[in-house]
Amino acid sequence: MPYVTVKMLEGRTEEQKKSLVEKVTDAVSETTGAPKEKVVVFIEEMTKNHYAVAGKRLSDEE
Amino acid sequence: MPYVTVKMLEGRTEEQKKSLVEKVTDAVSETTGAPKEKVVVFIEEMTKNHYAVAGKRLSDEE
Amino acid sequence: MPYVTVKMLEGRTEEQKKSLVEKVTDAVSETTGAPKEKVVVFIEEMTKNHYAVAGKRLSDEE
Amino acid sequence: MPYVTVKMLEGRTEEQKKSLVEKVTDAVSETTGAPKEKVVVFIEEMTKNHYAVAGKRLSDEE
Amino acid sequence: MPYVTVKMLEGRTEEQKKSLVEKVTDAVSETTGAPKEKVVVFIEEMTKNHYAVAGKRLSDEE
Amino acid sequence: MPYVTVKMLEGRTEEQKKSLVEKVTDAVSETTGAPKEKVVVFIEEMTKNHYAVAGKRLSDEE
Repeated sequence: MPYVTVKMLEGRTEEQKKSLVEKVTDAVSETTGAPKEKVVVFIEEMTKNHYAVAGKRLSDEE
Repeated sequence: MPYVTVKMLEGRTEEQKKSLVEKVTDAVSETTGAPKEKVVVFIEEMTKNHYAVAGKRLSDEE
Repeated sequence: MPYVTVKMLEGRTEEQKKSLVEKVTDAVSETTGAPKEKVVVFIEEMTKNHYAVAGKRLSDEE
Repeated sequence: MPYVTVKMLEGRTEEQKKSLVEKVTDAVSETTGAPKEKVVVFIEEMTKNHYAVAGKRLSDEE
Repeated sequence: MPYVTVKMLEGRTEEQKKSLVEKVTDAVSETTGAPKEKVVVFIEEMTKNHYAVAGKRLSDEE
Repeated sequence: MPYVTVKMLEGRTEEQKKSLVEKVTDAVSETTGAPKEKVVVFIEEMTKNHYAVAGKRLSDEE
């Protein structure tokens, strides 16, 4: 606790994801006062055919 | 905003998913008053071995 | 199945929510082929102080 | 209703998952009074590179 | 880990919820092999006007 | 996109939440390369009687 979920399109590198969870954990810990050991981060990736804005999937825009 | 998540078994075609996000976006926009540009739809697919009703997975029913 | 979650800011009337679940259910049933009886809709409401775009909460914009 | 989601690291066998949904369904039915037929269970699996505690992904710990 | 979310209609007593998290934790621990200390349970309650089956909210059925 | 959900116990001040969404947005933008304008943050608060670790709710520990 806190539990953070980051939902984004697939395609980021492992290096980016590693950095993402580090920086997000720091940001949450500093601002909520929760110790870093208690911060949990989940990454969830989407594909372009499963994500739509304004009724149009990203995979249909190209 | 609004953010809509549709969770369903895998197996629908791309044509069905394309139509799904279009129609759902229209339905949400019309009834909530949110402009279509603001409506986001996520599709999440499940496999039959990860979905159970009454304690029984769909993959165990066949 | 399918399970649909609509996440939006609080403030819609009961009449709007009633219409929302009807129209969304129709849209999902028509496009996925699932019978209406199998479509489940959840509404989740957010408050303006718990929703941020570009690092700014809606409650801080006024 | 109720709807139960179990999120865990990938790697459990089909036999474990089958047993998991049976036992969880029983536990929920007994304690909430909901009939077993109404209990739905979803399993969501994570990979080690998408799960972090204390700012460190499980995939970076080895 | 594992993380379990139980989503249900409001109205259960504190005694029921207490028992629910105990029994669900036991069920998850026994079947997945995860130690009880690692099992986290979240309860999420819905109201009848935010839950619909077949396009009809529970609050509209009475 | 990305969409970030922070789930935590209720009790943080508005000042803390304001700072939380700012810092998390910065962290996500810097590490994923997504422009800040595209980062969305949701805060979800839990009560102590709806959150359990090791089968025990926080509200039962005092």
